[in-house]
Amino acid sequence: MMMTAEAYEASLRKLNLKVYMFGQKVSNVVDHPIIRPSMNAVAKTYELAHRPEHEAIMTATSHLTGKKINRFTHIHQSTDDLVKKTRMGRLLGGATGCCFQRCVGMDSLNALSMTTFDIDAKYGTEYNKRFIRYLEYVQENDLTCDGAMTDPKGDRSLPPHKQKDPDLYLRVVEVKPDGIVVRGAKAHQTGAVNSHEVIVMPTISMREEDKDYAVSFALPSDAEGITYIMGRQSCDTRKLEMGTIDRGNPFFGGHEALVVFDDVFVPNDRIFMLKEFEFAGHLVERFASYHRQSYACKVGVGDVLIGASQTIAEYNGAEKAHHIKDKIVEMNHLNESLFCGSLACAATGHKEPSGTYYVNNLLANVFKQNVTRFPYELSRLAQDIAGGLMVTLPSEQDFNDPETGPVLKKYFQTRDGVLPENRARILRLIENITLGTAAVGYLTESMHGAGSPQAQRIMISRLANMEEKKKKAKALCGIKDNDQ
Amino acid sequence: MMMTAEAYEASLRKLNLKVYMFGQKVSNVVDHPIIRPSMNAVAKTYELAHRPEHEAIMTATSHLTGKKINRFTHIHQSTDDLVKKTRMGRLLGGATGCCFQRCVGMDSLNALSMTTFDIDAKYGTEYNKRFIRYLEYVQENDLTCDGAMTDPKGDRSLPPHKQKDPDLYLRVVEVKPDGIVVRGAKAHQTGAVNSHEVIVMPTISMREEDKDYAVSFALPSDAEGITYIMGRQSCDTRKLEMGTIDRGNPFFGGHEALVVFDDVFVPNDRIFMLKEFEFAGHLVERFASYHRQSYACKVGVGDVLIGASQTIAEYNGAEKAHHIKDKIVEMNHLNESLFCGSLACAATGHKEPSGTYYVNNLLANVFKQNVTRFPYELSRLAQDIAGGLMVTLPSEQDFNDPETGPVLKKYFQTRDGVLPENRARILRLIENITLGTAAVGYLTESMHGAGSPQAQRIMISRLANMEEKKKKAKALCGIKDNDQ
Amino acid sequence: MMMTAEAYEASLRKLNLKVYMFGQKVSNVVDHPIIRPSMNAVAKTYELAHRPEHEAIMTATSHLTGKKINRFTHIHQSTDDLVKKTRMGRLLGGATGCCFQRCVGMDSLNALSMTTFDIDAKYGTEYNKRFIRYLEYVQENDLTCDGAMTDPKGDRSLPPHKQKDPDLYLRVVEVKPDGIVVRGAKAHQTGAVNSHEVIVMPTISMREEDKDYAVSFALPSDAEGITYIMGRQSCDTRKLEMGTIDRGNPFFGGHEALVVFDDVFVPNDRIFMLKEFEFAGHLVERFASYHRQSYACKVGVGDVLIGASQTIAEYNGAEKAHHIKDKIVEMNHLNESLFCGSLACAATGHKEPSGTYYVNNLLANVFKQNVTRFPYELSRLAQDIAGGLMVTLPSEQDFNDPETGPVLKKYFQTRDGVLPENRARILRLIENITLGTAAVGYLTESMHGAGSPQAQRIMISRLANMEEKKKKAKALCGIKDNDQ
Amino acid sequence: MMMTAEAYEASLRKLNLKVYMFGQKVSNVVDHPIIRPSMNAVAKTYELAHRPEHEAIMTATSHLTGKKINRFTHIHQSTDDLVKKTRMGRLLGGATGCCFQRCVGMDSLNALSMTTFDIDAKYGTEYNKRFIRYLEYVQENDLTCDGAMTDPKGDRSLPPHKQKDPDLYLRVVEVKPDGIVVRGAKAHQTGAVNSHEVIVMPTISMREEDKDYAVSFALPSDAEGITYIMGRQSCDTRKLEMGTIDRGNPFFGGHEALVVFDDVFVPNDRIFMLKEFEFAGHLVERFASYHRQSYACKVGVGDVLIGASQTIAEYNGAEKAHHIKDKIVEMNHLNESLFCGSLACAATGHKEPSGTYYVNNLLANVFKQNVTRFPYELSRLAQDIAGGLMVTLPSEQDFNDPETGPVLKKYFQTRDGVLPENRARILRLIENITLGTAAVGYLTESMHGAGSPQAQRIMISRLANMEEKKKKAKALCGIKDNDQ
Repeated sequence: MMMTAEAYEASLRKLNLKVYMFGQKVSNVVDHPIIRPSMNAVAKTYELAHRPEHEAIMTATSHLTGKKINRFTHIHQSTDDLVKKTRMGRLLGGATGCCFQRCVGMDSLNALSMTTFDIDAKYGTEYNKRFIRYLEYVQENDLTCDGAMTDPKGDRSLPPHKQKDPDLYLRVVEVKPDGIVVRGAKAHQTGAVNSHEVIVMPTISMREEDKDYAVSFALPSDAEGITYIMGRQSCDTRKLEMGTIDRGNPFFGGHEALVVFDDVFVPNDRIFMLKEFEFAGHLVERFASYHRQSYACKVGVGDVLIGASQTIAEYNGAEKAHHIKDKIVEMNHLNESLFCGSLACAATGHKEPSGTYYVNNLLANVFKQNVTRFPYELSRLAQDIAGGLMVTLPSEQDFNDPETGPVLKKYFQTRDGVLPENRARILRLIENITLGTAAVGYLTESMHGAGSPQAQRIMISRLANMEEKKKKAKALCGIKDNDQ
Repeated sequence: MMMTAEAYEASLRKLNLKVYMFGQKVSNVVDHPIIRPSMNAVAKTYELAHRPEHEAIMTATSHLTGKKINRFTHIHQSTDDLVKKTRMGRLLGGATGCCFQRCVGMDSLNALSMTTFDIDAKYGTEYNKRFIRYLEYVQENDLTCDGAMTDPKGDRSLPPHKQKDPDLYLRVVEVKPDGIVVRGAKAHQTGAVNSHEVIVMPTISMREEDKDYAVSFALPSDAEGITYIMGRQSCDTRKLEMGTIDRGNPFFGGHEALVVFDDVFVPNDRIFMLKEFEFAGHLVERFASYHRQSYACKVGVGDVLIGASQTIAEYNGAEKAHHIKDKIVEMNHLNESLFCGSLACAATGHKEPSGTYYVNNLLANVFKQNVTRFPYELSRLAQDIAGGLMVTLPSEQDFNDPETGPVLKKYFQTRDGVLPENRARILRLIENITLGTAAVGYLTESMHGAGSPQAQRIMISRLANMEEKKKKAKALCGIKDNDQ
Repeated sequence: MMMTAEAYEASLRKLNLKVYMFGQKVSNVVDHPIIRPSMNAVAKTYELAHRPEHEAIMTATSHLTGKKINRFTHIHQSTDDLVKKTRMGRLLGGATGCCFQRCVGMDSLNALSMTTFDIDAKYGTEYNKRFIRYLEYVQENDLTCDGAMTDPKGDRSLPPHKQKDPDLYLRVVEVKPDGIVVRGAKAHQTGAVNSHEVIVMPTISMREEDKDYAVSFALPSDAEGITYIMGRQSCDTRKLEMGTIDRGNPFFGGHEALVVFDDVFVPNDRIFMLKEFEFAGHLVERFASYHRQSYACKVGVGDVLIGASQTIAEYNGAEKAHHIKDKIVEMNHLNESLFCGSLACAATGHKEPSGTYYVNNLLANVFKQNVTRFPYELSRLAQDIAGGLMVTLPSEQDFNDPETGPVLKKYFQTRDGVLPENRARILRLIENITLGTAAVGYLTESMHGAGSPQAQRIMISRLANMEEKKKKAKALCGIKDNDQ
Repeated sequence: MMMTAEAYEASLRKLNLKVYMFGQKVSNVVDHPIIRPSMNAVAKTYELAHRPEHEAIMTATSHLTGKKINRFTHIHQSTDDLVKKTRMGRLLGGATGCCFQRCVGMDSLNALSMTTFDIDAKYGTEYNKRFIRYLEYVQENDLTCDGAMTDPKGDRSLPPHKQKDPDLYLRVVEVKPDGIVVRGAKAHQTGAVNSHEVIVMPTISMREEDKDYAVSFALPSDAEGITYIMGRQSCDTRKLEMGTIDRGNPFFGGHEALVVFDDVFVPNDRIFMLKEFEFAGHLVERFASYHRQSYACKVGVGDVLIGASQTIAEYNGAEKAHHIKDKIVEMNHLNESLFCGSLACAATGHKEPSGTYYVNNLLANVFKQNVTRFPYELSRLAQDIAGGLMVTLPSEQDFNDPETGPVLKKYFQTRDGVLPENRARILRLIENITLGTAAVGYLTESMHGAGSPQAQRIMISRLANMEEKKKKAKALCGIKDNDQ
């Protein structure tokens, strides 16, 4: 049942996506050189699931069917499942050096498994039953789902229904007997055009006035009326160049797209929330917490960056310098400190009424807050170790040119046995992660993905038990309970 | 079998300890006003074990006897045990606002449970059997053990046997048929004079030349020839003053002592290592890792400090200022980030050949490294929120004086309903934790306890799998395996 | 005309101050062991002014009389004067290792030289003429002035006139033909009981409703109706102990007091502002900026802390360890970064209409903001280098005791030639600066003196030219001027 | 005499440079779209010198001729000159948003003015006379000089003469009666192909064995035998695209090149050092200190980045959020803290025997050390404020496309009056500075230019007066002078 990487690629070719980039419609999405590396990264999630040494991490047993499934389609049944999710993120981050895009779907499915259950409990609806059927379909077919949450938001000081253009948050424009029609857009959609399905969720807590915006559903990614406009990344067009050195990470990458829903029809059995506005925030919070945990992937990218830094230090003959060794320790320290956060919110997770295991919400936010800081410091340290050549290195063509090639090979030799070309490769990889296409994922996405830093601070503020702490302090210094 | 706090105090009164402070022998150790708060803190570890709401955390089931025992005497049988140890540290740190001194014993016992097993495996000795008998005695009597590791070390650039004075590391001076005679000292012994037992371990890795220093054993704390010289703490003599305000934390505290072994006899059945020098480092590393995990207690003290900061902000009418709220978030964020570290090294622990569960060594070091940083920043933020009055507040006597008291109460009033005296109490608590007696535990001990920061960095350097990371980096940028 | 240190001490003996401490009236202020070290520190400002090698820094030429005067009584006549003020602060901080308390007077005089001039320019009053006469008196008699700004403030969310008790800000309670009567208090007054004069200023910007609080004047420190209640410092009572080791810095220290004005009469010629409420903020801002610059003194204390850290590293035989050397570099780096801030705000000062040179206001705030951060990190690094013994060292009495003394000297020896007693001295000095009496000045006063961190952030926010910066950004990316 | 921007461009067209990029010889250097923005940035140094409002900063009076000259060709005659140099850097950084490349020449000239004088003083040579003639030529013709210091270095653990290939440091291969022949390369040459002259200096301290490497000279940039191979920058090829939005900073940029000297002849009157190996370090240190001061330019780029961050916050309607305001304060605080460093090392400069004013060496290193840290944090904060759209924004072509353009304009509208296109412009500018071509200058060059961080730490270690600091500490705690 679990797809192979090859089957995944083949399945994408069957999709009929409407994708735009650089002002043009993309005719062959799978083979487009800027998109393909991101497809390769998703393919890795299929490939590793078939490797015996990664089986425990990459696969799980479906609680619906009892079959072995790819963990990305699994509903967490224990804290052990949550811890394995953390490990899977690190594994794949290290294997691809970039965002592999499949977490959002997993996190959406798990969040919906709880929210649909809780809506039903209140209203006697049947969202959870629909959802379970949908989940089984996803598991059976081993699908990649895009989890689409972020609306364009327009003027951020106004709620959805007060925006000048009512479509700045995705909304229900018509309710029909057999389904609904929706309009709007979802921004920053990671991996959108590599997905079989798109799962739409609201992006903020809502009040009754916004109830038309309180909608969640799933659709095939090539449903009628959906358009994708690709976002640019730093250094994106290096992927159009010949050669492999200057791309840094020639095989893997990521992408983001604006996904536009232009009066798209959603059949009833694909709808998981419809105007139950008081559950919008509920779903957002659950998805966000799961997705914050998912940033364990950056620990894997950090492994690659640390490995690259150590390698260039060795190539330069500088690896024994005390300050270099100390910087490598600091990089490891920061990277493992991150890992602790994702592990801790997983290991202290708990079972929700729906049966799904949920991460420790406070610690998931604490972890993600560190993700908005440490990768930047890791990048700074990597650039320190790499040396200035990382940004002054001539192009791969210059290395290959009969005129300039020998000159470069002469002047960029370091210690015996190191090929100048390999020195260039490792420098370009560090450039890729700290300034190039992968920096989009390693830095900016670490900052804003799963919520910008202030979103986590608000959650920390809400979740820290301040009354308990005040009580402890007052007790110790002799202030009586009812005293101020 | 588990002692009550009262029984614990009574048991201490029966000890005949030789303790010196301020140039004088202390006649009544238990009631000495500078020592007593530290006894109170240990007593809390007995008291809470009898509270039903803390039973799961504070007690465990002995793997030797199957009886319910205080967790401080338990050998960890699962990662769940390790996680509970972390929670117990936080609980007690929050309940006492200081160091409660009983972790060193627990960590020594667990380390010895492994090292004695491993020595026996190599040499066919019977250390583990002796140890198990000793452990059962400790569990049955619910004893507090001092874990004594740090030697004075003399000239740090020289190994034990090269020191001018051979006693600068504790050593075996004579081997008799029925036991050994040892001489030397152990410095910085937290809780030494509140302990029933002292467990001695070597402090560094050793070579054959140092084998007389490779010794581990346990003795009653009042064994013939042991002397305790108490260390001073910042603000220690405030405990001699009347009143309770200026002490900050009037009931709880900590203490450290230099423990001198002046040709002390150790019977054979109390010896757990004797000249097996190659296991000195083994024992040090195991104790250190467990003890690094134990710094979860500082998260509990952090809870108190955060609670105190929030309280003084409310007393001052400043709690709604955005910068104050943000500083409280940052304090919580740092404190929970610490918590994640201790949890993570516990949750990813594993079973050693001896059957004991051991923490994740790398993550324990990563956690402790953060402990050498974050409490300092938490203190800085607490002092920021507290305002300058924390260090310019007149004495409790001035508050009580008929002349100055009314003046102080007039001018130190803030918003309605806040007693100026309570404002003083909470400020003195923050002073206590950030500058006073508790700062010794919260700051300096966080820095140096369980190894100074550089010790952790060396471990991180050893334990990070750099070859794996280099391999990942090279694979991604296209450097062939055997290439440099 | 410039007093010697001896003459200064003699002059203090003639004062008739009403001082309370520990619930008792202090009969002999000058010789009280807790107060005397702070007197010694002020005396240093007199002593060094007579040393030829410090003449350029410590003295200036009065712009009123042309005579050589102590720089602490000088009105800055050039940016060179401002730079010398910075250097004087560092010099004295290094010479005393603590707060020498005389800056507040200098900063008050300079601020008043401008504010009185500007009030007169608006209202045709004669405050500046009065002030000049007063200044000449201070210069001729080489007086130490306390600059008293901070009111108790009560409920911080309310302005002065809305406080339940109208005295929570110092105010004019009666205007008489020959003067005024004032009531209220000033908190945190550094060096108050070592001063000949007290110069009172308002503490916040005010509106018309608060005009009774908009008052500035100078009085002899022993004027009828003024009472001083001394604040406590961490480890203050160590100064009452015999011996010199445990005090850390046995000769120098600081102090703070609450200064209470109980219907005190101020004659007209000592009044520098009376109800010109719109100049309250003007005076506060000028005093604050000068006083922020004054924190150059902490760079001098930093020099002492760095010197002590290097010394203990050498005593321990650890000074060649790479991590120790790197921490010393970091300490120097942070300390000199601070120095840059004070120098820069001085070197870019300008002449105000009154003729007085004023520091660069933005950079003075930027500097002080760093003062609220870097000394804490310097302290942390010093504690790292010092090792745990700093907080576990037995008392000086134990060193002198015939029983314990030899034991301590045996076990606290390090490398050849280092006296264990000297090791104790240097550790106690580091304890003094990072936890003890001097920590009050080096840490908490660095945080809150001359305004808490948020005060500087508000000023930075006001003074940064954001329109200019937006214009530059828009110009570069091609956004037209009038576009948003 | 001072050239206009137009004259500068015309003068470049007359040069006959041998430049390679992307494996091809560049036929028209001035108009090449990737190179031209860097030419524009240099041109700005000519343009602003003619603007009356910048005259005081941008121009100086030649101490040789008494004529008004561009400050970039001036030898500093006072600390005021040094302070103006700092201000000029900030001005131009703000006007271009990038590296304007002309400091290296100015810093080389000033360093040579001292080193040539000092060599002559020791050896009675005439280097200074030659240099003065050369300087006059540069001033009269208002030339841009590349200061070429960094050699490729090969195996960093070996000195020049021990490298396998002797050319890995530039060296004298032949001494002729009328000049010398040199071979080697200089890496990372900023602005190389926009320069009229190239001034070569050694890159490290040397011993006698390396004397053939101890050489300094100046040549026209198009001298026979010199080849330039251009380095790549992140996002460099966006400059080849149509439109202006996606380039971020469409008009200005920087470049670096490898400059190869293939047996180039240098006539005697252009030689400023020849085998006086003991002055190699002397020259390196002087150039480095001046050049470290020059990083004041990054404060100007910081102004742009802060302005852009404020602008996008306003566009998004988020500028009133407290956390955004606080982040803007922090950005300003860090940026002005940097400014303080450059100002301080200038204001405390001193006159050298040659008459040239030299910056405070310790503070210049302290400043540069902060430059290796703060711009990274400023970038992180800018990315925080910018939001995720910065890295997911579609291309300019998509904005212009009739199909996708209206969709993007609909969904990327924010508050009233903000053009979505302008939002894109400002986001692309932030991308440019934090990830794109300008990040090379703002981040990586801040790290490694004028010496990598460790180089500054070594200098701080050497220049901090530790003996003085130890003496202060010992004096305060009562350790006698001759005691350890």
